[in-house]
Amino acid sequence: MITDKSGELAAKTHEIDRLAGEIHEANVSNLILVHGGGSFGHPSAERYAIKDGYKEESQKIGFSETHHFMTVLNGLFMDSLIMHRVPAVSVTPSSCMITEKGRVKQFEDAPLVTLLRMGFTPVLYGDVVFDTNLGFTVLSGDQLISTLAIRFNAERIIIGVDEDGVYTADPKLEKTAKMLEYLKLEELKKLQSKLGKPTACDVTGGMFGKLAELVPAVEKKIPVTIVNATKPGFVRMALEGETVKGTKIEKE
Amino acid sequence: MITDKSGELAAKTHEIDRLAGEIHEANVSNLILVHGGGSFGHPSAERYAIKDGYKEESQKIGFSETHHFMTVLNGLFMDSLIMHRVPAVSVTPSSCMITEKGRVKQFEDAPLVTLLRMGFTPVLYGDVVFDTNLGFTVLSGDQLISTLAIRFNAERIIIGVDEDGVYTADPKLEKTAKMLEYLKLEELKKLQSKLGKPTACDVTGGMFGKLAELVPAVEKKIPVTIVNATKPGFVRMALEGETVKGTKIEKE
Repeated sequence: MITDKSGELAAKTHEIDRLAGEIHEANVSNLILVHGGGSFGHPSAERYAIKDGYKEESQKIGFSETHHFMTVLNGLFMDSLIMHRVPAVSVTPSSCMITEKGRVKQFEDAPLVTLLRMGFTPVLYGDVVFDTNLGFTVLSGDQLISTLAIRFNAERIIIGVDEDGVYTADPKLEKTAKMLEYLKLEELKKLQSKLGKPTACDVTGGMFGKLAELVPAVEKKIPVTIVNATKPGFVRMALEGETVKGTKIEKE
Repeated sequence: MITDKSGELAAKTHEIDRLAGEIHEANVSNLILVHGGGSFGHPSAERYAIKDGYKEESQKIGFSETHHFMTVLNGLFMDSLIMHRVPAVSVTPSSCMITEKGRVKQFEDAPLVTLLRMGFTPVLYGDVVFDTNLGFTVLSGDQLISTLAIRFNAERIIIGVDEDGVYTADPKLEKTAKMLEYLKLEELKKLQSKLGKPTACDVTGGMFGKLAELVPAVEKKIPVTIVNATKPGFVRMALEGETVKGTKIEKE
């Protein structure tokens, strides 16, 4: 929700600044931040069909462009974090990760491990990456969250979205959709198929994609909290471990 | 010379744009671009003594800041390159390299190798990095040039500076300094000690630092051309292999 998905290259800088402030206030140690592409990464990735892999020369400038736009969005977030004195350092996924058929295969994690050990706050983001099978593809922020949480045995995952949590159906399409405050792994798996594909621009699948990516982390017993990041204070409270309205997902 | 070293965060965007155009026109394959920190990286790196390594907590925000400023400068360069349809992709040194006492020790080069194989133009830059011995330090663009040239067995190295080439003394201080059009490795080594430390803001040593870093590459028989990048067309001609005024350095 740090970009306006109805536009292109449209950052919500006020929201970014507020969230950076909340992250500063919460002052959580061992925190890894991950953000998505929104209206910076998705339109360009879609236009050049980057997710489907390399097929023709003309896609190359699209790969360059998508990566660059993501670094611009990341730069806006970094601006705010550093202004709020968060010792944040961006880690570029395409510079240290290679996927195989869209899944992270190779990951040079030494810089990230050092960042955490020294008390920095690493910031990663959805990016275009090289793929041993497809040539290149899109690596979503959602896959990064799950991959990093499992690799570093995270205590918990907090996901900020622009809805109050997970619904029984897409609340933007169905008025009768009900919010779920608590989800067990089995229910999560059943729900996935029901949520269908997203409406807004999102090459990596919106809430459907998010939930699908979360399954492996929940299976490893990492609890997930999905909160409405557009509500001031919600991300801060969630980071501080306070109970806040949203959806909690646990293995059992 | 893509920044104004007398200022802070002062990019010469006209020069950046002109150079991006020249790089596009030259249309060289297997090209790796590297730029330095200028007035983006150096003031902050110096203020927080990042090069000397981690000594106290208060340096951490300086590490974050220096890295961020470098990504901002890189972003301006990437903007221009992509606008000129160069399929350029930035590779973040701190995301894939670790140094030991200031020298590159670990380097996950798979993304860079893939970029070159697929015909992209990787762009790297002087950055702050983690160091197994110092905690963190500065990795200069000059060290990157030499490291990458040796690792990928480069055909040649072209360095753009804001002077006509290498002089017998610092031409900004001594009016009698003579430009050297041709330098052999042995002469280069002798000259190093004479050039002394730089005058403008440059934590990694200006021309002195450049020459010191180039020695290992020249020893591996990689020829170096140093040209005045402020002169329109010089970088393009050098990239195209044309003879252009400057300093040529060869092993023998």
